[in-house]
Amino acid sequence: MHMAKTSLLFIACIVSLLSHTACQAKVWQFEWEVGYVYASPDCEEKLVMAINGQFPGPTIRAKAGDTIHLKLKNTLDTEGVVIHWHGIRQQGTPWADGTASISQCAINPEETFNYTFEVDKAGTYFYHGHYGMQRAAGLYGSLIVDVADGEEEPFHYNGEFNLLLSDWYHKSIYDQMVGLSSRPMKWIGEPQSLLINGRGQYNCSLAAHLIQGSSTCKLTKDCEPVVLQVLPNKTYRLRIASTTSLASLNLAIGNHKMTVVEADGNYVEPFSVDDMDIYSGESYSVLITTDQNPSSNYWLSVGVRGRKPNTQPALAIINYLPNSPSKLPESSPPVTPVWNDYAHSKSFTYKILAKEGTPRPPQKHNKRIALLNTQNKLDGYTKWAINNVSLALPTTPYLGAMKFQIKHAFDPQPPPENFSSDYDVMKPAKNPNTTQSTNAYVFQLNSTVDVILQNANAIAENVSEIHPWHLHGHDFWVLGYGDGRFQEKDVSTFNLKNPPLRNTVVIFPYGWTALRFVTDNPGVWAFHCHIEPHLHMGMGVIFAEGIEYVGKIPRDAITCGLTGKMLINNHLP
Amino acid sequence: MHMAKTSLLFIACIVSLLSHTACQAKVWQFEWEVGYVYASPDCEEKLVMAINGQFPGPTIRAKAGDTIHLKLKNTLDTEGVVIHWHGIRQQGTPWADGTASISQCAINPEETFNYTFEVDKAGTYFYHGHYGMQRAAGLYGSLIVDVADGEEEPFHYNGEFNLLLSDWYHKSIYDQMVGLSSRPMKWIGEPQSLLINGRGQYNCSLAAHLIQGSSTCKLTKDCEPVVLQVLPNKTYRLRIASTTSLASLNLAIGNHKMTVVEADGNYVEPFSVDDMDIYSGESYSVLITTDQNPSSNYWLSVGVRGRKPNTQPALAIINYLPNSPSKLPESSPPVTPVWNDYAHSKSFTYKILAKEGTPRPPQKHNKRIALLNTQNKLDGYTKWAINNVSLALPTTPYLGAMKFQIKHAFDPQPPPENFSSDYDVMKPAKNPNTTQSTNAYVFQLNSTVDVILQNANAIAENVSEIHPWHLHGHDFWVLGYGDGRFQEKDVSTFNLKNPPLRNTVVIFPYGWTALRFVTDNPGVWAFHCHIEPHLHMGMGVIFAEGIEYVGKIPRDAITCGLTGKMLINNHLP
Repeated sequence: MHMAKTSLLFIACIVSLLSHTACQAKVWQFEWEVGYVYASPDCEEKLVMAINGQFPGPTIRAKAGDTIHLKLKNTLDTEGVVIHWHGIRQQGTPWADGTASISQCAINPEETFNYTFEVDKAGTYFYHGHYGMQRAAGLYGSLIVDVADGEEEPFHYNGEFNLLLSDWYHKSIYDQMVGLSSRPMKWIGEPQSLLINGRGQYNCSLAAHLIQGSSTCKLTKDCEPVVLQVLPNKTYRLRIASTTSLASLNLAIGNHKMTVVEADGNYVEPFSVDDMDIYSGESYSVLITTDQNPSSNYWLSVGVRGRKPNTQPALAIINYLPNSPSKLPESSPPVTPVWNDYAHSKSFTYKILAKEGTPRPPQKHNKRIALLNTQNKLDGYTKWAINNVSLALPTTPYLGAMKFQIKHAFDPQPPPENFSSDYDVMKPAKNPNTTQSTNAYVFQLNSTVDVILQNANAIAENVSEIHPWHLHGHDFWVLGYGDGRFQEKDVSTFNLKNPPLRNTVVIFPYGWTALRFVTDNPGVWAFHCHIEPHLHMGMGVIFAEGIEYVGKIPRDAITCGLTGKMLINNHLP
Repeated sequence: MHMAKTSLLFIACIVSLLSHTACQAKVWQFEWEVGYVYASPDCEEKLVMAINGQFPGPTIRAKAGDTIHLKLKNTLDTEGVVIHWHGIRQQGTPWADGTASISQCAINPEETFNYTFEVDKAGTYFYHGHYGMQRAAGLYGSLIVDVADGEEEPFHYNGEFNLLLSDWYHKSIYDQMVGLSSRPMKWIGEPQSLLINGRGQYNCSLAAHLIQGSSTCKLTKDCEPVVLQVLPNKTYRLRIASTTSLASLNLAIGNHKMTVVEADGNYVEPFSVDDMDIYSGESYSVLITTDQNPSSNYWLSVGVRGRKPNTQPALAIINYLPNSPSKLPESSPPVTPVWNDYAHSKSFTYKILAKEGTPRPPQKHNKRIALLNTQNKLDGYTKWAINNVSLALPTTPYLGAMKFQIKHAFDPQPPPENFSSDYDVMKPAKNPNTTQSTNAYVFQLNSTVDVILQNANAIAENVSEIHPWHLHGHDFWVLGYGDGRFQEKDVSTFNLKNPPLRNTVVIFPYGWTALRFVTDNPGVWAFHCHIEPHLHMGMGVIFAEGIEYVGKIPRDAITCGLTGKMLINNHLP
């Protein structure tokens, strides 16, 4: 019957003699069921992967230091499922990271898995499926962490709105996955729609519709435009996150400047922009002041960047009260910058710097690896590879396999930490062939690791794509960016003073991005391009550290593959 | 990479001092991978669930007494899978019956399950997915068992052809499954095409195409019509099986009579017909003699019966050599009988009687149950129910749950063995509401059980549908059929002399069918309507017998649900 059931209970604070704040931490209990529903997010009916019948899934809202206890039941007919809590570092709970084949076994139909983790840091986060391409099926929602009681945000606002951005395809994810794995590869193409909080309008110019009553639009309850109701002369916080499958986005609001104050759950030095880029996996908070003509409403527009767009911008309405929400904005929606104006994108990205008070990076690194991003061929299949190795996830999740030193669960050979010194990143590879492996980098615990993400030309000439890289289990400092191939002398340009702390960072076409992080979180963590089809085609690596300090893994997380067999044969401690 | 890999090895015969025939039994080894491919079975491209890249899956061909050892690897991205060997009784190997939630846990992605079973009886069988609606996604193929060396079929033929019939939908099975489970229910509608050996032509009148070059047809390699090449004045055996999701079929060959000689792997008293009905789950052998004008080719036509058809007939060509296969038949394709001419259907079905030498039923039964088939409502959802209980499969497969006496795995309450004496089968139920349960009937081992399948009016007035019921693990004798509600006096009409042995039998609208079987096969066995959406909506029951005699269940079959938990907690023997 797949009955929707939610319960949200305040259980108890933790009584502690050691800390007066401990008693403020709450434990939130959720019961969720994942299943398909029919919905029309962009006015076209399609199967949507929903939680308790809702799409996007319910918003989780907690305070820093709270604990989330979430029973996730899979009510899909024949598929497994997991949920990843994007941006939550899972310190001490690596088995709750929600990555199939990495931190846990997929939850089988009708089975339940308990996610328990602390949300230790205020910020704008989200959650999403991390098995196959289930994120692209609609399995996502927002996770907002407020500052702990008694703490204050370092900026003031009168109200806030939450905008979860995504893109939407009409083809099923099964079609998409099989196409990407076909020989020759069938590319998924551009999305049919962009969604704001799960709403968009396919094949419908919303502005034209509202102005002229355009007949192509068939708005229904599921796809009505989002309306943000504001009062004049107030300051609002917009929490903006992107969980797109493919699209890089740009967001702008007619007549209003935005002040960026947070990125990926970390405060940044405030800066003001007319429009902002947001890549899949990123989140931001911006402040807007409603200081424009209060007799008008205004458009908020979200368009595609970095790929020749074939998708109409998504629109929302900033509704100055007491105007009617259906009062048409006087000016037309902001126009998205030209898709390949990378100078504009870089200008935005380079402005993001840590707010004073943000932890600084260690001044020296213990280890540096370089990761070359290339598009390749493998036996006629199209793949993405890192240092010429395309990621193939193992049947046995790494976390259990490493913890219990299971043989043959993954390739124990360390993957390459660099790439050929004569590789020309500006041209297609001389030999496009790649290999495939489980790509696990094992780091010393509590070491400082620098990663140079190096972009390159794809298979076709004069093509180099944007890739937003997301790290699980950690934030990292973004030390710098550059064009062309990274060189040793570029180290001197690293920003060690106020580099932003993030969990997702972009590499621009033909460029490099340098980041630093500390391996302070025992576990196994994915580091991957957040573009869903790219990850599906192998664009990721695995970072592991301090496995010997990983606590008792819940058995439900390791009941598959070789750990499952060993559990059953009683060979595990 | 999902590389296709097949190996078919003759391993060894079993040396035995006790029997001279034992050395003729072979062990066949197969390695199969289930995965999606793109194919165009009816000239429209769609995802198709294939085995080693083939659709339909490879034909298994063995001799009676041989053993099949088949390693099935799941290479689907996120879904489980199982395969059921339809018509194979699995004596002594109930864990190899390939029914998810009943005989085994679904095989997870990248995992492998070993099916080992004996094909003990010559006949025409097939195999198919038995998890969710994966059969309808294309997961099926033929399984042909020849007589053992030294044995002879009781009829003569010069050659044979194998025709596996199916129907085909363009909507994904996910769409179909969610629609059926939606409130209100979204019915799947009639199939877009009928397929013969996986080939059909959507939106294309093949005859018109060949005659006039009709432009709506876009024949490709995947959807070229099947051609049966014959020599004049010979006798051919056609092995015909139906694995349709919904459609009841009728098959006819222009100018040729057919002599029915086998049904569901049992010989029948030969009888001659111009056309034959075949319901989902049934198989037949017919003999045809190529005694018609040899300068012509002939059409074989397969059309829809029992539902108002909205699907074009499938056509194949009987190509008399040395004519060109593209030589047009001189007469147009046989016309399928009117869909609701049930008298015609009954006439065919009633002719099926056991060939002399077929085991006869015990003359007395130990137990009789009556199973009322009704369409119902459950909290606004549409269901099919048996004695007012709609089947909901449990998370823990029954076989392991019963063997290890696991509590709370299924409802231990025996389901009703009869229905209200004042139920009017000719009218919609006064109260259409049903309940839902796990519906397990537990029988004494080696008892003779009579089952009266009672059809009734559906929810709408003047609607009663055909349901082909299929029993796993056994053949049964069909003792009789009748119209209206079964009455005690109908027992006197039972055929105890030469009732046919079958594994699938139909109930006609508003009618009843009586069958008898012996509970001689320790295990847990599905008994259900073979129409895929009806089973998905709860139209089935579970029969169990002699659980204490079930041998050691392979652990891979019970690693899910409560048996999985107990295995892991070491509570199992």
